[in-house]
Amino acid sequence: MAINTCTLRPVGYVASTIKDRKDAPLQGDEADNMSWIELTADAMPAAADLRPGDRVIVLTWLHLADRDVQTVHPRGDRSRPLTGVFSTRSEHRPNPIGLHEVEILEVDERRIRVRGLEAIDGTPVVDIKPVLGERGDR
Amino acid sequence: MAINTCTLRPVGYVASTIKDRKDAPLQGDEADNMSWIELTADAMPAAADLRPGDRVIVLTWLHLADRDVQTVHPRGDRSRPLTGVFSTRSEHRPNPIGLHEVEILEVDERRIRVRGLEAIDGTPVVDIKPVLGERGDR
Repeated sequence: MAINTCTLRPVGYVASTIKDRKDAPLQGDEADNMSWIELTADAMPAAADLRPGDRVIVLTWLHLADRDVQTVHPRGDRSRPLTGVFSTRSEHRPNPIGLHEVEILEVDERRIRVRGLEAIDGTPVVDIKPVLGERGDR
Repeated sequence: MAINTCTLRPVGYVASTIKDRKDAPLQGDEADNMSWIELTADAMPAAADLRPGDRVIVLTWLHLADRDVQTVHPRGDRSRPLTGVFSTRSEHRPNPIGLHEVEILEVDERRIRVRGLEAIDGTPVVDIKPVLGERGDR
């Protein structure tokens, strides 16, 4: 039935000072990091109308996550009961897609500087969308 | 570098009265449809803590989309200029992941009834997450 496979093609990669997991905050809104999205050449037309000031949701592929995890102690706190990952923001889940609501600060040809994207350097970016509830006319 | 591939594994499928694209509204919040998510057996532990009343974001794989589209006339209106898909909600985009903010109405073992999920019957579900900004402690 499906006319396309479910294999994601990265449209860019995160360039960040966060180099490994111990540097990464648990939630994006806990820090005020600035990082870049470096687009692939193929994705440039899709990004051509992004502008500084736009609020967008960046979808990433959390490539270091463990896809076989179904339950976690929320935020790694073992005093809390095991919880199904669909009720949590754990990166460990069957399809580790990260959602990051960010503000675009600068657009520089193939690079987009954003505030609020807490992802490890090298993380694949798979989509960029207007924030839910905004730009309903597009 | 990646320790997992970028291939999505559906965790469920949408069961809906929307059987083809002409029935589907352009945006989820324009209708008040109720539909079911039928979980795969593998995904049941991940969903075990979802409850009626929870607001969640359902991520779908829009399997009928055209992945080679980079620009669209917003909402199919040809009087509007071609716009890069990352500034639109077009389903046609390099990685056609749908984001649907829904309310859980009922949980019935392997099926979850939701309000607000405007997707065609048979659409793969790839993730379920707490709404951004809520459940920050999980």
